Amino acid sequence: MSGLAISFADIEAAAGRLKGWAAETPLIESPALNDRLGLRVLIKPETLQRVGAFKFRGAFNRLAQLTPEERTRGVVAFSSGNHAQGVALAARLLGMPALIVMPADAPRVKVEATKGYGAEVRVYDRLTESREQIAAAIAQERGAVIVPAFDDPHIIAGQGTAGLEMVRQAEALGAALDVVVTPCGGGGLLAGVATAVKALSPRTALIGAEPAGYDDTLRSLQAGERQPLTPRARTLCDALESPCPGELTFPILLRHVAGMAVVTDTEVAAAVRFAATTLKLVAEPGGAAGLAALLAGKVDTFGGRTVGLVLSGGNIDPDLLARILRDEI
Amino acid sequence: MSGLAISFADIEAAAGRLKGWAAETPLIESPALNDRLGLRVLIKPETLQRVGAFKFRGAFNRLAQLTPEERTRGVVAFSSGNHAQGVALAARLLGMPALIVMPADAPRVKVEATKGYGAEVRVYDRLTESREQIAAAIAQERGAVIVPAFDDPHIIAGQGTAGLEMVRQAEALGAALDVVVTPCGGGGLLAGVATAVKALSPRTALIGAEPAGYDDTLRSLQAGERQPLTPRARTLCDALESPCPGELTFPILLRHVAGMAVVTDTEVAAAVRFAATTLKLVAEPGGAAGLAALLAGKVDTFGGRTVGLVLSGGNIDPDLLARILRDEI
Repeated sequence: MSGLAISFADIEAAAGRLKGWAAETPLIESPALNDRLGLRVLIKPETLQRVGAFKFRGAFNRLAQLTPEERTRGVVAFSSGNHAQGVALAARLLGMPALIVMPADAPRVKVEATKGYGAEVRVYDRLTESREQIAAAIAQERGAVIVPAFDDPHIIAGQGTAGLEMVRQAEALGAALDVVVTPCGGGGLLAGVATAVKALSPRTALIGAEPAGYDDTLRSLQAGERQPLTPRARTLCDALESPCPGELTFPILLRHVAGMAVVTDTEVAAAVRFAATTLKLVAEPGGAAGLAALLAGKVDTFGGRTVGLVLSGGNIDPDLLARILRDEI
Repeated sequence: MSGLAISFADIEAAAGRLKGWAAETPLIESPALNDRLGLRVLIKPETLQRVGAFKFRGAFNRLAQLTPEERTRGVVAFSSGNHAQGVALAARLLGMPALIVMPADAPRVKVEATKGYGAEVRVYDRLTESREQIAAAIAQERGAVIVPAFDDPHIIAGQGTAGLEMVRQAEALGAALDVVVTPCGGGGLLAGVATAVKALSPRTALIGAEPAGYDDTLRSLQAGERQPLTPRARTLCDALESPCPGELTFPILLRHVAGMAVVTDTEVAAAVRFAATTLKLVAEPGGAAGLAALLAGKVDTFGGRTVGLVLSGGNIDPDLLARILRDEI
């Protein structure tokens, strides 16, 4: 008994549920990136996942396990965007209603996409309203199930399938991963990927990347217990604005994570620009946090040379991408 | 004896030479694109190829077959950009000097990248100078080999490896391609891909996409013989500004191509925008010509539902991409 919220078997089961529904995103390599870093970087572009982010994996894995009765009443989630889209699409594919509570300042592209997948969207004001209270009230009224963004075993296991695929795809290339880097908000992706990677390749070091001003995971790991922070600054990484690791994700991170890198907006913008101009991949700021950490030399590879990198999402407002391409950020 | 410049065996041999040097780009699928078109589109993103375009395949296949003596004297090429980069990188990897003759109005990103790969660049004026004469003079002076952009059997065979991979990757997904669409300039990519696809899947229809103002391939196929045109207009598709199909590519196109689609700048810009915002892939205008044709409903699928699409290049100036993202084009 590990005492952790999920086991590797949960990830394998999730992979079975996702088969034919989620994309098996490729594992790709850029000689230009390798040359620049002096490393071999194997990139898992979850930007090419359904809804443009890994979040579909966890959402689908959660919703696929609802009972017929629960499906009738549907689901409620709150999210600034990618989880919203993941839940909305999974609900549509599985034939159940979904309502998503989204902040008024969420990227427009994410709000529109969530509506496009057929979900009802309830907008709230970050400063004056509590999304948790709104969601809880609606869920109670409808008898709907609340789908957390990260602190749920099925969500974590679903996200872990990205790590499972990455290790197997790397093996198929004859590569052994020394380090795996993923962005980190509430820790669902990092915890899931860490569980998969450590099961298949125990010597691989896991590194998370979080934005400056939201380095709650670094602080919590240093303290050995969850340390919520009070958000003081905005970050380009809207997808990573989580003020505290989850109750379920944190013990997994504490067990498996070797280090955290904290990246600035400038570094993140440079990574989004590099992704578009050199990798030819569109990444959103939060999705490029791991790449930003690598490009900024903030990832300790412990002497290793082969790095697995999750580019976790690509849902960026076109105007923001244009500004970044023009060096306006 | 087919009377054509290359056979399928030449493509298989090229694939052997490219192994470990060129990327095997993935074959990816976007449910959003499928839904929009009512088709299943399997996308071969050569944007993720080395140098950001399929051109590396042909250039490397050509340069790898030079004799040691020829390698000492090096190569000369003329190109607005992607062939330039392909030759420059292949030359660097194989350890020979390269000089590229590029128009003064080539996309800056392509000129810089070509220099970045270590090639010498000689800029010329499209209106007052002949790139052929400049290249010929330099080649004679140095005893260097001229590497044509498309009208060369080794170049065509190299480009064909993209088609070989596509058919095999589709088979691995359990998909049979009804139609394959590629952009078309001088016809190297289309001829190579057609040769591979027809050898492996004779019933698959081949469609080329070329820009308005440069529909020389359509006109030539209609006439049954090469019809050079006098360029009257500029096009966003700098990579496809070829005024005439090649001597070697044309007979292959005449044998294998079922139809051509001609796309406008507006349609191409929409495709570049769609690629970035929905597919999360950066494509250059010429590279997105096939996607543009599909989105504009200009591809006859002959009742088929499964389409292979080559997204052939991603080397777009960041400022142009920004303008397209902002709907300024």
